[in-house]
Amino acid sequence: MKFTINRNAFLEELSIVQRAISSKTTIPILTGVKLVLTSEGLHLTGSNADISIESYLPVSTEKANLQIEEEGAIVLQSRFFGEIIRKLPETTFTLEVMSQNQVKITSGPAEFLVKGIDADNYPHLPVVEATNQLKIPINVLKSIISETSFAVSLHESRPILTGVHFVFSNNELLAVATDSHRLSQRIIGVMNSEEDFDIIIPGKSLLELSRSFKENEEMVEISIMENQVLFKTPSMSFYSRLLEGKYPDTNRLIPTSFNTRIEFNVPTFLAAIERASLLSHEGRNNIVKLRIDENEVMIHSNSPEIGNVQEELDYKSVSGNPLEIAFNPDYMKDALKAFGNIEIALNFIEPLRPFTIVPIDSDEQFIQLITPVRTN
Amino acid sequence: MKFTINRNAFLEELSIVQRAISSKTTIPILTGVKLVLTSEGLHLTGSNADISIESYLPVSTEKANLQIEEEGAIVLQSRFFGEIIRKLPETTFTLEVMSQNQVKITSGPAEFLVKGIDADNYPHLPVVEATNQLKIPINVLKSIISETSFAVSLHESRPILTGVHFVFSNNELLAVATDSHRLSQRIIGVMNSEEDFDIIIPGKSLLELSRSFKENEEMVEISIMENQVLFKTPSMSFYSRLLEGKYPDTNRLIPTSFNTRIEFNVPTFLAAIERASLLSHEGRNNIVKLRIDENEVMIHSNSPEIGNVQEELDYKSVSGNPLEIAFNPDYMKDALKAFGNIEIALNFIEPLRPFTIVPIDSDEQFIQLITPVRTN
Repeated sequence: MKFTINRNAFLEELSIVQRAISSKTTIPILTGVKLVLTSEGLHLTGSNADISIESYLPVSTEKANLQIEEEGAIVLQSRFFGEIIRKLPETTFTLEVMSQNQVKITSGPAEFLVKGIDADNYPHLPVVEATNQLKIPINVLKSIISETSFAVSLHESRPILTGVHFVFSNNELLAVATDSHRLSQRIIGVMNSEEDFDIIIPGKSLLELSRSFKENEEMVEISIMENQVLFKTPSMSFYSRLLEGKYPDTNRLIPTSFNTRIEFNVPTFLAAIERASLLSHEGRNNIVKLRIDENEVMIHSNSPEIGNVQEELDYKSVSGNPLEIAFNPDYMKDALKAFGNIEIALNFIEPLRPFTIVPIDSDEQFIQLITPVRTN
Repeated sequence: MKFTINRNAFLEELSIVQRAISSKTTIPILTGVKLVLTSEGLHLTGSNADISIESYLPVSTEKANLQIEEEGAIVLQSRFFGEIIRKLPETTFTLEVMSQNQVKITSGPAEFLVKGIDADNYPHLPVVEATNQLKIPINVLKSIISETSFAVSLHESRPILTGVHFVFSNNELLAVATDSHRLSQRIIGVMNSEEDFDIIIPGKSLLELSRSFKENEEMVEISIMENQVLFKTPSMSFYSRLLEGKYPDTNRLIPTSFNTRIEFNVPTFLAAIERASLLSHEGRNNIVKLRIDENEVMIHSNSPEIGNVQEELDYKSVSGNPLEIAFNPDYMKDALKAFGNIEIALNFIEPLRPFTIVPIDSDEQFIQLITPVRTN
């Protein structure tokens, strides 16, 4: 294998596949990045136990200026190789595999000789059959991920809850995540799937996926396999394992009738919650109280060792019964951040029943649910 | 005590004194910041075992818009108090000490009640006599610090070497630091001291001092006390303890005659050293080799487990005997960074004798010394 390439174009591809590479793996070859050069272009691959990323740089990519002298393949220790490429003195470099997997990297007056590993020893990625596919815009997928993945459980005691549940049926895609204290659910209309599906994707995989898309690409193709899902764009194939098991029926958790409703502007409400959580974070119980009266809405937090905070809230409208309710302000902060700068409604039944948060002016089917805390 | 003040102007002062406050102290009151309000302005104080910082905001400071309602003093837990002030909703806030050291902080609709500590329990700062003083420009002091403090020892086995040695005599200020493997020395002319002095200031104190100066102030007054040094500007008093003991005689370490000399442009040489150190950092010995021949200068590093790198260097001029010398590239990187973007000369005696690095075109008395490594 021998090629010359623009350093920055190469680094861009490398940094994408490096997302999948961990230095902590117990399989030494997986600390490496696999390079495969064909007459059509350069493939880079990185992988760990959960995700694999393959990036593809076609020979036609102008800014890469890829000059192929000899096809071939090699695996290089990812972190160290990346550091070398980043520090090279010129805008291009040449990489050549010599005898015994020795790799020579030259750029201007600098010449590195490093040890590579035979690419035949690198694990194979799953083969995808072209059925069970769905195509959606990347920005829609990124929204769904940011709207749901924060609500997955971080505890391995119920592994199934560490994933986001994706259900496609009746030309609708539903995504829902819950850690059993709060829940976030988003539904969008999708037109072009060939079959229905029901899968659970690890939350961590989704966050990496979201960061891996290139800015200039628009659509992603989702393919479901036995234990894997593949997200494919022209320049990248992103594989994630799926979580096995049955996701709980979350639909029955979401209440539909309410006794108290209050509307807020998100940034105003969020800033007040953040102030209140300063106190709750210092205390033994991380609790903030919201009190809704006819003509006053107050937020309050108390930490006997430290002090207390109270603030009269600026709201849009309020209706229904007076109410005092206590909740974890961190769940509220996460929920509000997922909505962004819009107006929302909080809908309550009574102090110890879960309450929902929904956008006011939107056709979007986006709902969040928080379970309150018992305070006495 | 009761006052109203601009939030950002207050935060600026608070962030300066917070540099001296550690949450790890064994003296609980030192996790606090002391506020003292007089009819002339607001003093904030933070302190730990090594340094104390007092900042002063006169009532005349326009952007602070300090409204004094009642003079007084209080100590507040620094980190938590700072977080509250940062999150307040309005551009100003009011702070009032109530009974039993309860402190009320109000800003718009938000009201915090937190526990303070009686300011009488806060340790007193040393009293300074107006003798033994020296006045120098802040930018000169900052240069001296950045040119020397990186070379102090980080090991407590020889505590005296964790400080920078400052000697003032004959209207010259000499600053020198060494960790016994490398040394950095800077001399400047100073005109206005009343007495000579010879002190050792902890390197860590100097780094904090350097970061604490405000941009709009020009001169700093240095006062030497028994075990302390005070750096004073109109808005800040920065106290540091001094290291006790006798600093080694570093002057005899610096050679004055040489057999080989090579001149480099700093950024070019630094980039090559950084590439070579990629390999040396991976190996067991962190060593880079420089080989100077009549018509070629090469840098080389080898790590048997990983690979090797070599590069022909771009130099300005070379003279004297051919030479091959090995050194720790991290010391060289630190030294080069202290010079900045200029041209320097390396002066060698022989492979196992310390070599010096000096600026070429400069009247500055700035010299760095590195001890080479034996490789066989």
